[in-house]
Amino acid sequence: MKLSFQKSSLLNGINIVLKAVPAKTTMSILECILIDATGDDIKLTANDMELGIETTVEGSILERGRIAIEAKLFSEIIRRLPDSEVIVEVDDNLRVSITCEKADFKIAGKSAEEFSYLPTIEKEKYISVSQFTLKEIIRQTLFSIAPGDVNKLMTGELFEVHENELKVTSLDGHRISIRKVSLRDSYADQKVVVPGKTLSEISKILSGDSDKDVLIFFGRNHILFEFDQTLVVSRLIEGEYFRVDQMLSNDYETKMTINKKDFLDSIERSVLLVRENDKKPIILNLQDQILEMTLTSMMGTMKEEILVNKQGKDIMIAFNPKFLIDALRVIDDENVDIYMVNSKAPCFIRDEEGSYIYLILPVNFNRS
Amino acid sequence: MKLSFQKSSLLNGINIVLKAVPAKTTMSILECILIDATGDDIKLTANDMELGIETTVEGSILERGRIAIEAKLFSEIIRRLPDSEVIVEVDDNLRVSITCEKADFKIAGKSAEEFSYLPTIEKEKYISVSQFTLKEIIRQTLFSIAPGDVNKLMTGELFEVHENELKVTSLDGHRISIRKVSLRDSYADQKVVVPGKTLSEISKILSGDSDKDVLIFFGRNHILFEFDQTLVVSRLIEGEYFRVDQMLSNDYETKMTINKKDFLDSIERSVLLVRENDKKPIILNLQDQILEMTLTSMMGTMKEEILVNKQGKDIMIAFNPKFLIDALRVIDDENVDIYMVNSKAPCFIRDEEGSYIYLILPVNFNRS
Repeated sequence: MKLSFQKSSLLNGINIVLKAVPAKTTMSILECILIDATGDDIKLTANDMELGIETTVEGSILERGRIAIEAKLFSEIIRRLPDSEVIVEVDDNLRVSITCEKADFKIAGKSAEEFSYLPTIEKEKYISVSQFTLKEIIRQTLFSIAPGDVNKLMTGELFEVHENELKVTSLDGHRISIRKVSLRDSYADQKVVVPGKTLSEISKILSGDSDKDVLIFFGRNHILFEFDQTLVVSRLIEGEYFRVDQMLSNDYETKMTINKKDFLDSIERSVLLVRENDKKPIILNLQDQILEMTLTSMMGTMKEEILVNKQGKDIMIAFNPKFLIDALRVIDDENVDIYMVNSKAPCFIRDEEGSYIYLILPVNFNRS
Repeated sequence: MKLSFQKSSLLNGINIVLKAVPAKTTMSILECILIDATGDDIKLTANDMELGIETTVEGSILERGRIAIEAKLFSEIIRRLPDSEVIVEVDDNLRVSITCEKADFKIAGKSAEEFSYLPTIEKEKYISVSQFTLKEIIRQTLFSIAPGDVNKLMTGELFEVHENELKVTSLDGHRISIRKVSLRDSYADQKVVVPGKTLSEISKILSGDSDKDVLIFFGRNHILFEFDQTLVVSRLIEGEYFRVDQMLSNDYETKMTINKKDFLDSIERSVLLVRENDKKPIILNLQDQILEMTLTSMMGTMKEEILVNKQGKDIMIAFNPKFLIDALRVIDDENVDIYMVNSKAPCFIRDEEGSYIYLILPVNFNRS
């Protein structure tokens, strides 16, 4: 095999597939990037068996072939080369030579035979969504999965398609995040649970361009994202997702409308008094049009007031401040509406159109 | 005590003295910043007993007094406050109240009695140097101290003043770095060893402005740096520094002039093949006007060539690539001259004027 690339194209391709190279593994072939130039294109692939990424890189095929190369070393070498033409050549002993101007690296490759190619997904059921929308919806929900949970369903997000609506749900036992977006077309119903890790990696690769689309294909056990010159394939999480609808309600006793930035700034200040695993609640005391927030810990006390718009009853309720922060950070509205029933029932942060719902359970607190 | 500040002034002062707050200590008073407003100015001080920093902060004294406050918490609270007026008030129980707009923090202070003020240094012997020059000379030499060495002298740098010249030397057993700068005036001779940690912290505080000066005062056991509104006092390291002059020599068999950037880029690429504690040398083979560099490790082989200007004999010599990288990174010249005798003797990277000398010992290598 002998290939020629511009350094920047090759590096860009490597950076994309690198997201599917596991940090630690006992199977050394998984730490490799496969370069496949057996056809008319040059394809780079990495695959950790849960998540696989394939991308096509511009370059010239001087001699066809394929090789697996240790991903980290390969990426570091390419990154450090001068911004010029790079030649990657493999001899019969799988010895890889990387040359660029006067620099010449020789490293050991691995047989492509060992490498697991991506599974093939039937391209029947799909939706189309802009890169911007997909990236945003992931950012706005991913924080409330439970990454290490024994219940695998909590480590992923529910993707639901109904007609022209995509709805994404995540939950971790203390809170639920739901985002809905409208699609340009109507599609067949879908309901799959996508691993959080896949979504986290894919959102790093997405350009976030609103003019470019992502095609999402739904297979039986896999999901495939296709965009730019790249394919991302991931296993789905099996099982019946939680019945979230039963936990939602539109009833409330108190509706508070508050400036989002002021509210977020105050809560972020309050957590300065909380050290790591010390779970101190922030107590919200809403009386008339004034929200008083207090947090007391070993380190001291913080008290702040914000003028709000209140409808309904006064209320005193406490939350884990981190949960409020997580939700408020991903809401772009200037003001948010918060709906509460009593100090034991969940609060809902949601907009009129129902494009987002953040449910957060309150915590017990000492009223003194 | 009751003081009023603009948030930005207070935060700026805190960030300066924070450099002298130790990360870990068993004496909790050392983790504090002292606010002293017993006189006409508001002074912040931190002191870890080796290094002490005092800075004057703009603000209004509404009621005189002093208090010690846990540095980390104090700095985080101030950082998060709105950009507005901050009031710091202490009651008779050493309870500190920090208020800013609608935010009100209450935290515990500590008695200023416990706090160790900075030692007083006689201001007889001194030099004046620009902030830019001091910051640069530290950057250009500090990398070759031996921070954890049992020989305390190796953990510091020798500062020598002779007439109108300041010379700074550091060494770690494998290399020596020397930088000289001219001062605007002539001063009495000085010779002190300053702890590396002091120099590292001070260079973070120095603005690097070439229009602003630093006064350096030499005490018996301490050195004092005075600049802007800030005093930095450090203990000196006791003992007789190494006789570096004996190790320097102007004799050479080979002089190589090489483009610094090309040389540095090549060596930086070569170390991609070296993992952590794997000490692989880079072999320089200089023949005629071509420098060939090779590095071979478990991971592979790298070979590069650079056209150079050579005077004298051909030579083959090997170095720890890190040592070449460290020296080349702090030299701003486009081309560097490297003087060598043979493969067992140190090489010297130095300029004509003698403003810098970097001595590096070679390592053994396999000629095959």
